[in-house]
Amino acid sequence: MLLVLTGNAKGKTTSAIGTAIRTLGHNQKVLIIQFIKESESGEITFLKKLANPNLKLHICGKGFYKIKGDHSTKEDHKKSAQEGIKKLKEELSSFSPALVILDEINNACSLGLIDPTEIIDIITKYKQTNFILTGRNAPKEFIEKSDLITEMKEIKHPFNQGQTAQKGLDF
Amino acid sequence: MLLVLTGNAKGKTTSAIGTAIRTLGHNQKVLIIQFIKESESGEITFLKKLANPNLKLHICGKGFYKIKGDHSTKEDHKKSAQEGIKKLKEELSSFSPALVILDEINNACSLGLIDPTEIIDIITKYKQTNFILTGRNAPKEFIEKSDLITEMKEIKHPFNQGQTAQKGLDF
Repeated sequence: MLLVLTGNAKGKTTSAIGTAIRTLGHNQKVLIIQFIKESESGEITFLKKLANPNLKLHICGKGFYKIKGDHSTKEDHKKSAQEGIKKLKEELSSFSPALVILDEINNACSLGLIDPTEIIDIITKYKQTNFILTGRNAPKEFIEKSDLITEMKEIKHPFNQGQTAQKGLDF
Repeated sequence: MLLVLTGNAKGKTTSAIGTAIRTLGHNQKVLIIQFIKESESGEITFLKKLANPNLKLHICGKGFYKIKGDHSTKEDHKKSAQEGIKKLKEELSSFSPALVILDEINNACSLGLIDPTEIIDIITKYKQTNFILTGRNAPKEFIEKSDLITEMKEIKHPFNQGQTAQKGLDF
């Protein structure tokens, strides 16, 4: 099953993490690979500390690409993303997760760091595995192949009212 | 901060649970009260087993109301929901959570089991606490009071293609 969580609103990564927790609750294995993001959000700190043998986690981002303060080259970003794909292939073959979360992969594709057809080929090979792909701007290849798409749609957001990101809620 | 997660698509409860994990990652306290739902989903099993002192969890539902197989009266459902509100008030006062998740409370309000103004009064009293209210059909009182609303919008769903709910993904 291929699930795509996209849209401009809050809730994509947290929903994926919640589904990871749900899956772990059934003693099924979960693999999380985080693209783009480099810094450790609260959920990553928490999941690492769990040291649950049913959970594997790889952070393969170099920080947000092409934003203020990004000193990495496109090649650096691509290299990190390719490291993530390498980990994905290895873990699918050796760890055999029931659920794979590729966090921010939609962004990584739309930024040209990953070729979506490479991901589709992997997903097609592992039909029994559930995949959740998160991030804005999901590529058309994911949209077409997906079984489920939820668009997180922003109706109201405090950042638009001058609020800044808050620990626990936003990171 | 008041966050409302609504809409007809998958991702509301899982996003709330993911935010709980994020908040726990910062060693902040989380209270989860689940309305409507009675049975234990994977995430509840998992969270209970954690036995994390920063997390409190109360299941105050009698199962989905007015659906096939529901043998409870409206009074039974109301009683469970009121039990949830009692727990909410007690925990806000004694446990002092940083984040409160009221899962399926939007539904509980729209079904007439809870008066939304009672919830608004509580939220107004605890300005320093973050609240996440989930469920379809968020009442207008929550919409107006909220700082953030994400609508989980269904673009594609496998149930529409004859698939049934799947352990780990859907419960």
